[in-house]
Amino acid sequence: MPDETRAVPRLTLVLGGARSGKSAHAEWLVSAQAGPWLYVATAQGWDDEMRERIALHRARRPPPWETVDAPRDLAGAIRRAPPGRPVLVDCLTLWLTNAMLDEEADLAAEVADLLAACAAAPGPLVLVSNEVGFGIVPENALARRFRDEAGRLHQRLATLADRVVLVVAGLPMTIKGETQ
Amino acid sequence: MPDETRAVPRLTLVLGGARSGKSAHAEWLVSAQAGPWLYVATAQGWDDEMRERIALHRARRPPPWETVDAPRDLAGAIRRAPPGRPVLVDCLTLWLTNAMLDEEADLAAEVADLLAACAAAPGPLVLVSNEVGFGIVPENALARRFRDEAGRLHQRLATLADRVVLVVAGLPMTIKGETQ
Amino acid sequence: MPDETRAVPRLTLVLGGARSGKSAHAEWLVSAQAGPWLYVATAQGWDDEMRERIALHRARRPPPWETVDAPRDLAGAIRRAPPGRPVLVDCLTLWLTNAMLDEEADLAAEVADLLAACAAAPGPLVLVSNEVGFGIVPENALARRFRDEAGRLHQRLATLADRVVLVVAGLPMTIKGETQ
Repeated sequence: MPDETRAVPRLTLVLGGARSGKSAHAEWLVSAQAGPWLYVATAQGWDDEMRERIALHRARRPPPWETVDAPRDLAGAIRRAPPGRPVLVDCLTLWLTNAMLDEEADLAAEVADLLAACAAAPGPLVLVSNEVGFGIVPENALARRFRDEAGRLHQRLATLADRVVLVVAGLPMTIKGETQ
Repeated sequence: MPDETRAVPRLTLVLGGARSGKSAHAEWLVSAQAGPWLYVATAQGWDDEMRERIALHRARRPPPWETVDAPRDLAGAIRRAPPGRPVLVDCLTLWLTNAMLDEEADLAAEVADLLAACAAAPGPLVLVSNEVGFGIVPENALARRFRDEAGRLHQRLATLADRVVLVVAGLPMTIKGETQ
Repeated sequence: MPDETRAVPRLTLVLGGARSGKSAHAEWLVSAQAGPWLYVATAQGWDDEMRERIALHRARRPPPWETVDAPRDLAGAIRRAPPGRPVLVDCLTLWLTNAMLDEEADLAAEVADLLAACAAAPGPLVLVSNEVGFGIVPENALARRFRDEAGRLHQRLATLADRVVLVVAGLPMTIKGETQ
């Protein structure tokens, strides 16, 4: 591995609001490394709106991007990534949604397993997630639980991460680690 | 034009949450320039709550503020501003709302025209907008579409802007350009 | 009072989203001072979900934390704190909710009294509050009014504060004052 890659953060968490440009920023971070790059997609095509969003995301990633779908076994997909391959996970929010909607899932165990996979990953690994906690308390109980789980997951990942970035209007604010 | 104005950003985007003090901060940025200043108001008085907010905003702007209303033709109002006149647009969120509620509007064309007007404006031009993407996904489809359109518009304007500021609790965080 | 405490901010405002780690960060700020520390809790156990959250918060605070409950008379609790005692108020959001739900309350007078108590407090005083203004406009009128009141309160407290911190994913972003 060449010397200049030593400074590349092993684990980066990219947070942002809806349509903040967080995915594009994360792709930029990953594609600054030597390819090929692995894109781990967590979206599930539940409805037309979601399928349209997936299609838009895929259109942005021609080779040397390689795509794997991991709507449920995200920890496994991270563990199966070839060592040294830059990995982009887009996004944790959808994975968490899928896990919470799976009534047979043990969410706490799955979160712990995901954290273990991220902690063990050789990197560079870039995780994208939606920051969803800056609005009024949702009236819907599931939505309240979702933002609690998302917030706790982000805190735990931020502890593991070498770099945490908050994207606003396409612009990255580095809140942990060195500014790129 | 005196030398000291060379450092004034031509285009500034001021983002902030509800009641974040973003309008007051933007007015402070504009009024730090030599007046008179042009206030481009995009609010439409649909109901009592909105009319009350408009009145409160107007009360804060005695001469040398000059006010023009542009709830729909914002690009035109920006183009018609006298060259060299500092311009404040408050706010993009309401303009976007008005455009989306106008069923005969070609939104993509209007957004492109607005971006062209901003790109061509001599400045200083300060645009205020609400950051609305940091909450839970709205249940309402129109609200989801609105925050998508707002997020995309902010990203495109941030690319054009010399300075982007995020206001939290009345305090400006500079996320692009020089800290003022 | 030893010299090294001179640099401790008298008044700190800690803002953050839901599950952002803002309470834990505020406790860290307070507990970096010599104890005992006073925890002013504003939560009211309206329902099981809230009572569970209160219990979780209390479990994090063994002695030398001393806890007082002030769901309504927060200004009084701040004034009654022994001089020199580090004080943590968690959180303003719940106090504001309680005050707004009290139909006999004069909210403007209570807010003014709270601001006066904070301005007069010897400190160190750390106030925790939820930033709730970065989502879509709520459909519920009370929620809209709440986020307006919260935003205005935050702006006024930020003016008084020596330090304002925005917590994202457990990480503090200093937006006023010295980075700790």
